[in-house]
Amino acid sequence: MNAYNDYLKDNGSRYLDELCEFLRIASISSLAEHAGDVRQAADWVAGRLNTAGIEAVQVLPTGGHPVVYGQWLHAPEAATVLIYGHFDTQPVDPVELWSRPPFEPLIKGDRIYARGASDDKGNMLAPIVAVEAMLETKGRLPVNVKFFFEGQEEIGSPQLNDFVASHRELLACDMILSADGGQWDPAQPVLVVGRRGICAVQIDLKSAVHDVHSGTYGGTFLNPIHALAGLVDSMRSPDGRISVEGFYKDVLDLSAAERDQIARIPYDESAYRDNLGVQQLWGEPGYSTYERAWIRPTLDVNGIWGGFQGEGVKTVIPSEAHAKITCRLVPNQDPAKIVDLLAEHVDKHLPAAATAVVTKLDAAADPFVIPLEHPGNQAASEILKELYGKEPYVTRMGGTIPVSGIFLKYLA
Amino acid sequence: MNAYNDYLKDNGSRYLDELCEFLRIASISSLAEHAGDVRQAADWVAGRLNTAGIEAVQVLPTGGHPVVYGQWLHAPEAATVLIYGHFDTQPVDPVELWSRPPFEPLIKGDRIYARGASDDKGNMLAPIVAVEAMLETKGRLPVNVKFFFEGQEEIGSPQLNDFVASHRELLACDMILSADGGQWDPAQPVLVVGRRGICAVQIDLKSAVHDVHSGTYGGTFLNPIHALAGLVDSMRSPDGRISVEGFYKDVLDLSAAERDQIARIPYDESAYRDNLGVQQLWGEPGYSTYERAWIRPTLDVNGIWGGFQGEGVKTVIPSEAHAKITCRLVPNQDPAKIVDLLAEHVDKHLPAAATAVVTKLDAAADPFVIPLEHPGNQAASEILKELYGKEPYVTRMGGTIPVSGIFLKYLA
Repeated sequence: MNAYNDYLKDNGSRYLDELCEFLRIASISSLAEHAGDVRQAADWVAGRLNTAGIEAVQVLPTGGHPVVYGQWLHAPEAATVLIYGHFDTQPVDPVELWSRPPFEPLIKGDRIYARGASDDKGNMLAPIVAVEAMLETKGRLPVNVKFFFEGQEEIGSPQLNDFVASHRELLACDMILSADGGQWDPAQPVLVVGRRGICAVQIDLKSAVHDVHSGTYGGTFLNPIHALAGLVDSMRSPDGRISVEGFYKDVLDLSAAERDQIARIPYDESAYRDNLGVQQLWGEPGYSTYERAWIRPTLDVNGIWGGFQGEGVKTVIPSEAHAKITCRLVPNQDPAKIVDLLAEHVDKHLPAAATAVVTKLDAAADPFVIPLEHPGNQAASEILKELYGKEPYVTRMGGTIPVSGIFLKYLA
Repeated sequence: MNAYNDYLKDNGSRYLDELCEFLRIASISSLAEHAGDVRQAADWVAGRLNTAGIEAVQVLPTGGHPVVYGQWLHAPEAATVLIYGHFDTQPVDPVELWSRPPFEPLIKGDRIYARGASDDKGNMLAPIVAVEAMLETKGRLPVNVKFFFEGQEEIGSPQLNDFVASHRELLACDMILSADGGQWDPAQPVLVVGRRGICAVQIDLKSAVHDVHSGTYGGTFLNPIHALAGLVDSMRSPDGRISVEGFYKDVLDLSAAERDQIARIPYDESAYRDNLGVQQLWGEPGYSTYERAWIRPTLDVNGIWGGFQGEGVKTVIPSEAHAKITCRLVPNQDPAKIVDLLAEHVDKHLPAAATAVVTKLDAAADPFVIPLEHPGNQAASEILKELYGKEPYVTRMGGTIPVSGIFLKYLA
């Protein structure tokens, strides 16, 4: 390994320059005016893969922001590992809260600061560099490698379902490593073995055909805001469980070993509270905070609105009220099924004096978990232990990388 | 009465021209750019009172839109009647939905169309004309009369409390007649003997100190939208009663005779439903629709908001959620006391994992009712019967004329 380590050391300042160059590309996927920057980032990644000795490098269209593919397939007896990452970033608003230009990287001690540095440009550059060093110093890799980088992770990967579905052969592999992740802290490695899925609906509730005066009509028909509040309140019990019938039916219970893995991770409740700025945490009885965040499903109203939101008083009874709801899902819940359960719940609990339409919104991702004993997890665990001198924490993440569920659907 | 009637007939076309002139003044009280028009309307009213033979006519400042006062006090043995009305109008937005300019009166058959024609310019001109005809033909009035017209009814009469409080002597009277009212239909007279009062609060609910990602934190602390929905839902029972403790405590029960007056008014439920565009009415059990609208108190959320209201999905748990609530109040409820009860209710029902601030909003008006046997009601009833050949319906109105409660407070 000496040649490999030396190569990395010798090229360290070049890698840093490259990362800075990559970070300077304002590849904000949610803003149409930055589409050219996302494309530029794709071209930069393709160029970087070529430099690393990766073959068949291509920037491929998706109908939205492009993806970048590359491969090294000269280990016919060995497994094929697909390495995933994304080269798009979140927006920078409100930009006045940044102390410096978000896309001008700042190096301070051992850290580098810029939009996208840890999510995900730095992370996705690491496996490219690792492969380059191995090819340069050994001439070969121990496994076959495919790189697959996307430019639309931050907007929910709207085109990736179709893209992956129609490129199954190109992306076929035995294992996928996501370079979109994180550390627990600088000294503590972590192995993320699962993510929650998601589904989303909007409830549009109607009562009268137009807004009316609360003096004239107040008390004679159902105010849709009250009907909506009642519906929302009926979906969760005060103790923190979700009351939508059938919601927990498909949820796989965690094994004692899995819960034990989570219980081993240090947890500082007062730090967690302080971070949120709340006096008190709240959640499903019988589960720890980490379990609530990682392995239990949720139902949250992300937005609610109806009637008058201005200064002072307007004595209106609005004709409509609206709520947006997302559920975080855990293995083995099915987003489409949960959307159906939500619609049934609304049907069942809506008072006859109001009408409601439940619309499925675009966010939909399957939850997933990789068994701890999977050879990929075992290998990653050993490597992390070797590098950091300690066992990695085994965690899950509460959020969703949409492509995870897509990979599972088409490539498993 | 012949001379009086002849005078009115002879001057009919002049009165119509005058009304059109009055209607052409765009006296929208809610828009600062129309303050000059409101002032012009006040001057127009003062001029018209002078023409009618009313004395001591003055346009008086209030700190906001002015009021107009005038008097005829030459019946020392008789009672003094104060006649109220307002010369301001509602705004005209959305103006594109008008088929013609809102302040350009259109006469079509027996009707005149313009913003403010029935609320309240036509109505307030009628008693001026009546007094003029009587003074012209008889030289005197049977009672003392004071006119008091305001220019801020449509914005809740914010300066009138102070104005009336500091002009008790000027406005002292035995009876008040409001020229702000309406007809049941062209052939059916109506006697409005009461109006509901109002109070208003805003609930600002907080949980985390900033918006957070529902993937990362969903399930671990209380989403303020859910806490707010629970609070709103706790304020009314599903059957239509208000569940705020003590809310009904001071409500005066209506006598059988009063309920009977209301029951006599023809009621067409399907027309009422169609007007609102609802499939089904809804309200407090044990009361008719008119009773629910006129003599029972209400609690309505007029506006609710929190989190994301845009297109699509944003997986946020907002740090705040808000609701605006008004209650319509009936005799003998006290707006300030009800605000306190609402704040106590929030205190009692808010989960410990959230915090809320309840702020009293500016709308506050006492409910009032004039006993049916009051000589004013008796006289009005007899006159309406004489004019229309039928008994007037005895109704109340669900809405609030703020000045009614102010008159009651300072002039009774």
